[in-house]
Amino acid sequence: MEHLNYFSADYQITADSKIEAETIARNICIEQSVEMPPEVVPIHIQSSIAAIESIEFISEKRWRARIRFPKILVGSEPTQLLNVLYGNSSLQPGIKLLDAEGAYLNELLPGPSFGIPGIRKLLNIQGRALSCTALKPIGLTPGELAERAYKFSSGGIDIIKDDHGLANQTTADFRSRVISCVRAVRKGEQKSGKRTLYFPNITTSPSQTVKRYEEAVSLGADGVLVSPQLTGPETLCELSAIGSVPVMAHPAFSGSFLIHDAQGIAAPFYLGKLWRAFGADCVIYPNTRGRFTFGLDLCKEINRQCRAEMGDIHPSFPTPGGGINRESVSVWLNEYGKDTILLVGGSLYQHPDGLERAAQEFQHILESHGQ
Amino acid sequence: MEHLNYFSADYQITADSKIEAETIARNICIEQSVEMPPEVVPIHIQSSIAAIESIEFISEKRWRARIRFPKILVGSEPTQLLNVLYGNSSLQPGIKLLDAEGAYLNELLPGPSFGIPGIRKLLNIQGRALSCTALKPIGLTPGELAERAYKFSSGGIDIIKDDHGLANQTTADFRSRVISCVRAVRKGEQKSGKRTLYFPNITTSPSQTVKRYEEAVSLGADGVLVSPQLTGPETLCELSAIGSVPVMAHPAFSGSFLIHDAQGIAAPFYLGKLWRAFGADCVIYPNTRGRFTFGLDLCKEINRQCRAEMGDIHPSFPTPGGGINRESVSVWLNEYGKDTILLVGGSLYQHPDGLERAAQEFQHILESHGQ
Repeated sequence: MEHLNYFSADYQITADSKIEAETIARNICIEQSVEMPPEVVPIHIQSSIAAIESIEFISEKRWRARIRFPKILVGSEPTQLLNVLYGNSSLQPGIKLLDAEGAYLNELLPGPSFGIPGIRKLLNIQGRALSCTALKPIGLTPGELAERAYKFSSGGIDIIKDDHGLANQTTADFRSRVISCVRAVRKGEQKSGKRTLYFPNITTSPSQTVKRYEEAVSLGADGVLVSPQLTGPETLCELSAIGSVPVMAHPAFSGSFLIHDAQGIAAPFYLGKLWRAFGADCVIYPNTRGRFTFGLDLCKEINRQCRAEMGDIHPSFPTPGGGINRESVSVWLNEYGKDTILLVGGSLYQHPDGLERAAQEFQHILESHGQ
Repeated sequence: MEHLNYFSADYQITADSKIEAETIARNICIEQSVEMPPEVVPIHIQSSIAAIESIEFISEKRWRARIRFPKILVGSEPTQLLNVLYGNSSLQPGIKLLDAEGAYLNELLPGPSFGIPGIRKLLNIQGRALSCTALKPIGLTPGELAERAYKFSSGGIDIIKDDHGLANQTTADFRSRVISCVRAVRKGEQKSGKRTLYFPNITTSPSQTVKRYEEAVSLGADGVLVSPQLTGPETLCELSAIGSVPVMAHPAFSGSFLIHDAQGIAAPFYLGKLWRAFGADCVIYPNTRGRFTFGLDLCKEINRQCRAEMGDIHPSFPTPGGGINRESVSVWLNEYGKDTILLVGGSLYQHPDGLERAAQEFQHILESHGQ
């Protein structure tokens, strides 16, 4: 039963030879466990040291090392899992975290409280992709933002989220904004005859984000938006544990982990598997061919990981955004299929006939594809 | 008085030409403020859009862009400052955050509650550098860790911190560990005849870290260790606002921001200026020539930024660590001068005559240099 006390994680190591890769892998084992020369680790706890399970050649100068960690290094705290997986190793060039054992993540982490099935149930929509847009920009008053929310809602959009930069600025403080926008969305629903969910941004100081979630729920919000890299990722676990409304995770401030080939954390693992396991009901990722540089294969893999089998953890709704145009909605529906939320922001604002019409057209494409 | 409503930040842009650099800088202005096509930003709030102040050539393919942000984008929340400085831009390769205006940071952020003068006062030590070591490894019981703490303390070391991997594992849960180690340190002080500060690691879930700080203080700890990148950086502000004991910040999980030339955040700014302004009394950074790859000039610049003039914000104690050997202590004293804490971990454990002797020798070198 020894395997029950360990979990494994995979790292990509950039090195000139297999011998060098082995040295680096051994250093990861020490750095990410006892963090001291192994010869001075007391004999009775030598088993605390992580161990290399395998090292495989990937391609020129690239090796994949599987490392076995005693679970006791982590204990029961998700934040310490991040530290064990990539704490000090983040400071070493040429070490990229690729993956960690799904069964262990499933054992330690809560996963989303709603996930794809829960969000579909809230909206009573099966069989088609969902639409999402963003309230923006910073600088507008609560009333002006609410007017935009009303138009999107009367156009029948499925989800309206705050722009991730709407925090608690004096132009539209959190409470006033949520009150106004909730009211506007409910009014818009009467015109559209369908449900629209409103997700205000609750990202604030690490200890206050949970309170802002509770405030959002008490004011009638249907979900929340949070940037886990700004609040600390374990916030997702805490919000999932409350479980009143779905949580949409935004990748702000996480890019430095995601955009390099030789270091950081593989985006499909971090956004698609880890944020999901931490508790994100929806995972926003920077879509390809927009204003970000993620490739198509990478985006499809993030999307896939959000929905792949993972024990009893719900699938998260993959939410590509960042430069999706109204005109390309069909393309992305074909690419990602129905279990995706398409986030279209700026392009709806550019519609010549206004936001309500833009939302109606967006919905029309989604509904046609779903049939 | 217009300048009072704005602050500036500097970015390094990697581009093939000045024209391309200007395009990227303009995109930063939009991405980090209104996040929508500027032509659809309502005319009455066009002033919300950030603006390019200057673009200067640095070296081949590198440009320095100074961007002016309306303070209203941030409001009063430090987490939103990080989002404005480097939220979505972190996802764009070739954009590195270099600096932000000190006067604004001083206006928004609390700085350390103790800083160098406060910690010197606690220890009643002027005119010399301080010693620090780490309790380790994970796997030991509270009693075993306390025995090590006793030896370091009787050897007269100035500060003992937990290893940053000691969280709340079953082998040594947080509460038992702090109780045992505080008692051991107080006992060791009786033998050494001098003060030793004990800083347990309080890094845990974002909303619980503040509570763990309060628990540590109530159990008699003299300071705390926290990894801001795991808890969310604004935790530093919250701990500084309590201000019962000093806070030592550890760079775990922040490496992906720090180790690349073309993206991320300049380490002297992030660790030396921003973490300091957020409230770190001591800033641990990976020293050069050890097992990390930071260069000497970079390390000296981090050290310098921790102590540079910054309005009424206290200087933080720069704390180089990560592979400093007993034998090289003098070298680093000459390099960094007296306002530095030298963190020596593994090398003390390797001393052939044990921890107490290792601590005595370490202290001896510091005291000789101080005279």
